[in-house]
Amino acid sequence: MHDLGIGLIGTGFMGRAHALAFNNAKAVFDLPLNLKLAALADADPQRARQCAQSWGFEASHSEWQQLIDDPKVNLIAITTPNHLHFPMAMAALAAGKAVYCEKPLAVSLAQAEQMRPAARTAGVVTRVGYNYQHNPMIQLARDMIRRGELGQIISFQGEFSEDFMADPASPWSWRCEAAHAGGALADLGSHLLAMARHLVGDVEAVCADSQTVHTQRPVSTGASEQRVIAVDDHVHALLRFSNGAQGTVSSSWLKHGYKNHLSFEISGTLGTLAFDQERLNELRLCRVGHCGFQRLLAGPELPGYAAFSPAAGHQLGYNELKTLEVQELVMAFAGQGGSGTDFEQAWAVERLAAAIRLAARERRWVTLTEL
Amino acid sequence: MHDLGIGLIGTGFMGRAHALAFNNAKAVFDLPLNLKLAALADADPQRARQCAQSWGFEASHSEWQQLIDDPKVNLIAITTPNHLHFPMAMAALAAGKAVYCEKPLAVSLAQAEQMRPAARTAGVVTRVGYNYQHNPMIQLARDMIRRGELGQIISFQGEFSEDFMADPASPWSWRCEAAHAGGALADLGSHLLAMARHLVGDVEAVCADSQTVHTQRPVSTGASEQRVIAVDDHVHALLRFSNGAQGTVSSSWLKHGYKNHLSFEISGTLGTLAFDQERLNELRLCRVGHCGFQRLLAGPELPGYAAFSPAAGHQLGYNELKTLEVQELVMAFAGQGGSGTDFEQAWAVERLAAAIRLAARERRWVTLTEL
Amino acid sequence: MHDLGIGLIGTGFMGRAHALAFNNAKAVFDLPLNLKLAALADADPQRARQCAQSWGFEASHSEWQQLIDDPKVNLIAITTPNHLHFPMAMAALAAGKAVYCEKPLAVSLAQAEQMRPAARTAGVVTRVGYNYQHNPMIQLARDMIRRGELGQIISFQGEFSEDFMADPASPWSWRCEAAHAGGALADLGSHLLAMARHLVGDVEAVCADSQTVHTQRPVSTGASEQRVIAVDDHVHALLRFSNGAQGTVSSSWLKHGYKNHLSFEISGTLGTLAFDQERLNELRLCRVGHCGFQRLLAGPELPGYAAFSPAAGHQLGYNELKTLEVQELVMAFAGQGGSGTDFEQAWAVERLAAAIRLAARERRWVTLTEL
Amino acid sequence: MHDLGIGLIGTGFMGRAHALAFNNAKAVFDLPLNLKLAALADADPQRARQCAQSWGFEASHSEWQQLIDDPKVNLIAITTPNHLHFPMAMAALAAGKAVYCEKPLAVSLAQAEQMRPAARTAGVVTRVGYNYQHNPMIQLARDMIRRGELGQIISFQGEFSEDFMADPASPWSWRCEAAHAGGALADLGSHLLAMARHLVGDVEAVCADSQTVHTQRPVSTGASEQRVIAVDDHVHALLRFSNGAQGTVSSSWLKHGYKNHLSFEISGTLGTLAFDQERLNELRLCRVGHCGFQRLLAGPELPGYAAFSPAAGHQLGYNELKTLEVQELVMAFAGQGGSGTDFEQAWAVERLAAAIRLAARERRWVTLTEL
Repeated sequence: MHDLGIGLIGTGFMGRAHALAFNNAKAVFDLPLNLKLAALADADPQRARQCAQSWGFEASHSEWQQLIDDPKVNLIAITTPNHLHFPMAMAALAAGKAVYCEKPLAVSLAQAEQMRPAARTAGVVTRVGYNYQHNPMIQLARDMIRRGELGQIISFQGEFSEDFMADPASPWSWRCEAAHAGGALADLGSHLLAMARHLVGDVEAVCADSQTVHTQRPVSTGASEQRVIAVDDHVHALLRFSNGAQGTVSSSWLKHGYKNHLSFEISGTLGTLAFDQERLNELRLCRVGHCGFQRLLAGPELPGYAAFSPAAGHQLGYNELKTLEVQELVMAFAGQGGSGTDFEQAWAVERLAAAIRLAARERRWVTLTEL
Repeated sequence: MHDLGIGLIGTGFMGRAHALAFNNAKAVFDLPLNLKLAALADADPQRARQCAQSWGFEASHSEWQQLIDDPKVNLIAITTPNHLHFPMAMAALAAGKAVYCEKPLAVSLAQAEQMRPAARTAGVVTRVGYNYQHNPMIQLARDMIRRGELGQIISFQGEFSEDFMADPASPWSWRCEAAHAGGALADLGSHLLAMARHLVGDVEAVCADSQTVHTQRPVSTGASEQRVIAVDDHVHALLRFSNGAQGTVSSSWLKHGYKNHLSFEISGTLGTLAFDQERLNELRLCRVGHCGFQRLLAGPELPGYAAFSPAAGHQLGYNELKTLEVQELVMAFAGQGGSGTDFEQAWAVERLAAAIRLAARERRWVTLTEL
Repeated sequence: MHDLGIGLIGTGFMGRAHALAFNNAKAVFDLPLNLKLAALADADPQRARQCAQSWGFEASHSEWQQLIDDPKVNLIAITTPNHLHFPMAMAALAAGKAVYCEKPLAVSLAQAEQMRPAARTAGVVTRVGYNYQHNPMIQLARDMIRRGELGQIISFQGEFSEDFMADPASPWSWRCEAAHAGGALADLGSHLLAMARHLVGDVEAVCADSQTVHTQRPVSTGASEQRVIAVDDHVHALLRFSNGAQGTVSSSWLKHGYKNHLSFEISGTLGTLAFDQERLNELRLCRVGHCGFQRLLAGPELPGYAAFSPAAGHQLGYNELKTLEVQELVMAFAGQGGSGTDFEQAWAVERLAAAIRLAARERRWVTLTEL
Repeated sequence: MHDLGIGLIGTGFMGRAHALAFNNAKAVFDLPLNLKLAALADADPQRARQCAQSWGFEASHSEWQQLIDDPKVNLIAITTPNHLHFPMAMAALAAGKAVYCEKPLAVSLAQAEQMRPAARTAGVVTRVGYNYQHNPMIQLARDMIRRGELGQIISFQGEFSEDFMADPASPWSWRCEAAHAGGALADLGSHLLAMARHLVGDVEAVCADSQTVHTQRPVSTGASEQRVIAVDDHVHALLRFSNGAQGTVSSSWLKHGYKNHLSFEISGTLGTLAFDQERLNELRLCRVGHCGFQRLLAGPELPGYAAFSPAAGHQLGYNELKTLEVQELVMAFAGQGGSGTDFEQAWAVERLAAAIRLAARERRWVTLTEL
């Protein structure tokens, strides 16, 4: 069995989540490749060394370019701040290495538009971390839709809301800067847009409205100095899908009561299906002729679930979605399928978000091909 | 105590619901006027007589104009098919009588625009049957919003979906005719638009998308002959409120799993509040600083509830909302306040629905003042 | 059509609920008898007169025995305090009149044991107001069980909890006196016991545990003087049914968060069914082979619902359950079936409650035939 | 930092779950000891070698006694079939090694009664895998109870039901043998009993009822040959706690619709708290003076959660509860606290289950000290 050498850049929360996911994927899946945690990079050499040791990486680097150049590394996992995704991914592609980049693909549509042909030219596997898609319940939803069990899809209504910026005293952070892909739409909503595309398909036109409710925030927690905020606090949009379905999406980081409310309802001529990430092991389903919604609980009849538990109802967690994403990535690298969002798809998500921003700014319907 | 003579036109489901509501209002409220069920009209004289007797009306008429002219009748309740609302209400106003008309106010905005000044000129009490507003839980929601308990209102997201036309074999009916105020938006969505206005206030601009999924239906149940359908099966819209709040509304009569899903979520800077008519005795509420949604159950601390039960959790039903609407109507007639949707407000609902249809047709934002 | 003359004793909340139910039953059902609200009795003659007028009764009495003797009265509805149920019902039976008594049948098993043969001897229709049974969803549950759709019944797990005595400062009332059928078990739990018998059948043995948590309470709201409380604040019991099913019942009036939580789950070899009175228009159901619970919403396919609304999801309320109880009562009087709890059944409920109290006191299993 | 050498016996589902938990505990916690995956034992030497490699263990053994004797091993993790828990744990204790045994402690109370003093004599850390207790939401519930936030505890009502034996064609397995700690009470219910003790404290007396509904099952899937089944399919019991609280517990493996329904409601004089393992990241809470239940979602304010995610609402899964259990185990080994169920506590759980069986058999209340 061939080795697949993993090089991880970044040691924050998502860096650790990647490390866990690579380790756990080895333990729970029969992978066609031998995952080797080859090297880890962090600008602080001591932290790089220490994390490499705790997380099981063989080597560490303080320069990310060294990691990309490391011949034992075949796949570059990027978990650094958003503005670094572009240079790191472009360097990895230039070196002919596979790339597994956290979302967003880039901090501007202009960057994404360079990354898309670069990936195509490099001819390598690329993935962007829209890990919510790897939930077995989402896979089930997608399969049901593809098999026509909901009939013709009529409508997608989605929302991704949280409350972490609801307090006007929540301070400014990079998430408040458009140049770092900040704002409720880019930060949260993009997960929802990716999900809508994953389940229903391409979007062809959008109209939208959005608002910055809190136009200034403290520069840091408790500070009296304020900083002007220009990114959206919430957004509502209409979507027109290529297959004729119509929909709404909403995203807010001001909505009291929600912590991870990535939710949607998809209705078709033969049924309705609903999901909420805050109860990620459940789907609500109503098929034609049944008189009410049924709650489906994740169980081992779904392959992604069975990898973690032989018994239904035992509940997967967020980190296991990441492990499932790694599995798909490895399958793709081995040329054995492997679903997930590649740079082409991730560019389409960025373009869709950009179209929504444009539609909100100009208060008109925007056709995706305009961008 | 003065008498208030009620004249009821129509003996269908809503006619009976009105009769029950008038009778029950007498029994449960301390009204400032003595409700007299003076007369009932139905084109079929025998049915008119029979219903009058069962429901406790003193007289019956087979000509509705006779009922309007009946000197014992002070208030005309109209529960006939939609296209008759206009002539009956106009005749009642011309006779200087109060009018309590089922929704919709009229079958076209043109009609509504005549009824509005006619009501103003007549100077009488008018009400349109948007009975869902009279739910004590809605009253509580409205009071909370008005008292500022949710802070500045940021967003209203509403939906009214049912499944009664989900089957493409569900036959044509008057509800499928624009000339009878048919379509998902007019039939269902107008309740939601009225609710949005009731709770959040005037809407100033809209954008929308809509679709007729099943473009023909059998002329009657089981018939092979088909009739072309032009009204919307579902609609999605963006709303911009005058107070700066933004929102979405959706309405569908094709959505499997829903029977009376008039639902909304209102988020403000200090909290979020959610409601679903399928659980009409509940509100979900999350205030700032609380870590999750709380379920409030209707109880006798709400005056509208206390009229029906001295103990919480005993649940009001749909018909009791109608009884509460009658109470407000009587209070208004007696000059003692009395909330509810008068012809002015009902015209605004019709204009809003018309704006949504225009926005969907022309695929652009429409300002309400355009209409 | 013959008349059925109603005589109502009591003008409190339940008196009014009866009056509403008789009036509404006339309006919504095609009854085989002509309901006449013949007379109303209250010890206060002025109140009797006034309520008779508001609620549509033809005559009023200040002596309840007069009402029983009134030849226009065929059926005596008793809504007075619990300790009066016995003398009034016995007098009515002695006069050969039908009796519709609010629950409980009596304040002691000894009384109930006199009422049972008295009813049999009188040969009249008797009913006790266990109105929750008349919910169309409960009727559906019962029909499903009887048709074998849940297979062999294995288990009944029920609870009736409220919070109205949770505050130790909630004052003493007659509900705190055993001599008035007070205590959580008698006041709330008896509804649950009646429901268990209605759905699953006779109980043959019980074991139980109970407690008085707050052993004294103020004599009245805010009073410093305390009164010793001897009745149970909460009870748990095991039930062994005659058909082999086993179960648990719990009742508490101390349980924070519940307002009318009469709930149960019935499991059989072919399915599980669950209900909560706080959402009285819903049943949760999981049939064999289905992978999760389904929510059923009440709709017009259920005859009891259709009487009130032609459309699903419109929700019945508590008072409409009372109207449905009246319908069954009238059907029984007309000799046309008519389900409901008669004195025989109500005695069985009292005996069951007494057995639970005995089992708790003696800390042992008690066979029902011991009592 | 000292090493803690882990020796794992068993390579089934729970073996792998342990391996994942040890690996992940290293990555997510700052542990006071250096976890070394020293050795793994499986009777099949090839499987032992292969699993050791996949899961990161340094050595493998085909004889479990070798693993116990391995000087690099300080702690023995036992994940073998139930009847092997006793000999393995006793051997480990005899060797002076710490023991981490999957539940149940043993297959009979007699065995458990030998293990309890053996553990005391050995003076080592012992733990039994009641991993559900390590859920941060359960920790929160326990802390709230201990801090008195629910007041005096009045009642514990618990249930652990699943449906995996609901089909009478589900074949016989070791779970159907009392000699392997089979039956719904031992297999599922013991988790609930451990939880009741964890949250409310010692139980002093019980009464119970139980039943074998399906008295024979196929010897294997699809076989026509049947095997007689003697263990309970479901049980209901009353509990009397030492602190005066009273309760019910139910357990069934026949209950359609449930997959992992370990649920409970605890009511006290100041509030009610409810939990369901099928939604393990949630607690429902109603405090005195609040008018309804509130849903709490797990978040990083709980230390156990923060180890896995910095953001609320991201959901822990079952396997992460296991990782949290390992953390507590390591803390205990390091002498730094460390909660969890030791052999003393696990013996008390076994005794409680035995008391329930005795009470059901003899149909009487059983005091725990009788056993």
